Amino acid sequence: MDYYSSQITKLIEELGRLPGVGNKSAQRLAFHIINMPEEQVMNLSNAMVEAKKNVRYCAKCFTLTDKEICPICASPKRNPSMIMVVESTRDLAAYEKTGKYEGVYHVLHGAISPMLGIGPENIKLKELMVRLQGNVEELIIATNSSLEGETTAMYISKLVKPTGVKVTRIASGVPVGSDLECTDEVTLLRALEGRVEI
Amino acid sequence: MDYYSSQITKLIEELGRLPGVGNKSAQRLAFHIINMPEEQVMNLSNAMVEAKKNVRYCAKCFTLTDKEICPICASPKRNPSMIMVVESTRDLAAYEKTGKYEGVYHVLHGAISPMLGIGPENIKLKELMVRLQGNVEELIIATNSSLEGETTAMYISKLVKPTGVKVTRIASGVPVGSDLECTDEVTLLRALEGRVEI
Repeated sequence: MDYYSSQITKLIEELGRLPGVGNKSAQRLAFHIINMPEEQVMNLSNAMVEAKKNVRYCAKCFTLTDKEICPICASPKRNPSMIMVVESTRDLAAYEKTGKYEGVYHVLHGAISPMLGIGPENIKLKELMVRLQGNVEELIIATNSSLEGETTAMYISKLVKPTGVKVTRIASGVPVGSDLECTDEVTLLRALEGRVEI
Repeated sequence: MDYYSSQITKLIEELGRLPGVGNKSAQRLAFHIINMPEEQVMNLSNAMVEAKKNVRYCAKCFTLTDKEICPICASPKRNPSMIMVVESTRDLAAYEKTGKYEGVYHVLHGAISPMLGIGPENIKLKELMVRLQGNVEELIIATNSSLEGETTAMYISKLVKPTGVKVTRIASGVPVGSDLECTDEVTLLRALEGRVEI
């Protein structure tokens, strides 16, 4: 690729390492960045370096934050006796967008996956058990409904039940607004099993 | 979006300004960057800043380069009396990948588009006319075969013909490997008009 100058080639290479960015996208992004105002390039570049340097795990719930304790754990409005277990900070953000959940979270940073060699010791499970020694009334398991997520949910529920803490799992069913005919069989069966009286 | 810490939110915002990066992709990229090794983040960040600072137009052909004269114009192996006119550095790179073109280039940085208010004075046309005062035998117009590209090609050919320089246009026709039945009518007609004896 020496038909680009070395610095353009270098930028294309570095951009091409990002997930979902192929060679064509990397070229497009590189030329866009070169044509951006210098201030905006500096902003983007600084945002990356600063986020990488300062973002760490919240000491309580292990979500990614740039403070010692994340804004959710630090908020007096949240109920610390209700903990929702999620796989990642993005899942946490998805629930926060609903604006209705008033408890706190626990971010596992992964899910148990024998296929990928991820065991219970590779996710933040020990840390969850430590938190449960405090005053916790309900543990809501909101891992994904994938094989790994379900395995993790089962594992946690078996681990936690003896401690006497109430363990719940978010409902699985037909998404709001979707057609029955487009929904897969497993989801349809789950929705039937989980039916509620109206 | 205050459910992310401010630095993550800032990074997501900055990434979301890039073309083709929506909110979901920006989130995915941001968390990927936070999880990358620090060295790789620095490499990416520096590549952006360095490219933005040092990349400029080649003094001869106006392609993007980090030198005064780009490697193609500086090469003694290239024939400077044959100039291919392209719209962008990416188009130049596309022809360079063929490895068979031995002339030099002229990058217009755009195409004439009355719709977008881009006139002949907004692209590097004046600079092309200056180059044609030198020893040029052939000008190959390789603008895109879009409406803007064709308009630009027509405009340049009318402008250059009186100077006596031979003006050619790259062939338009059915792409190699594609089916006739999937090719649009305009391309089929072009291919027919441009037929060559075999």
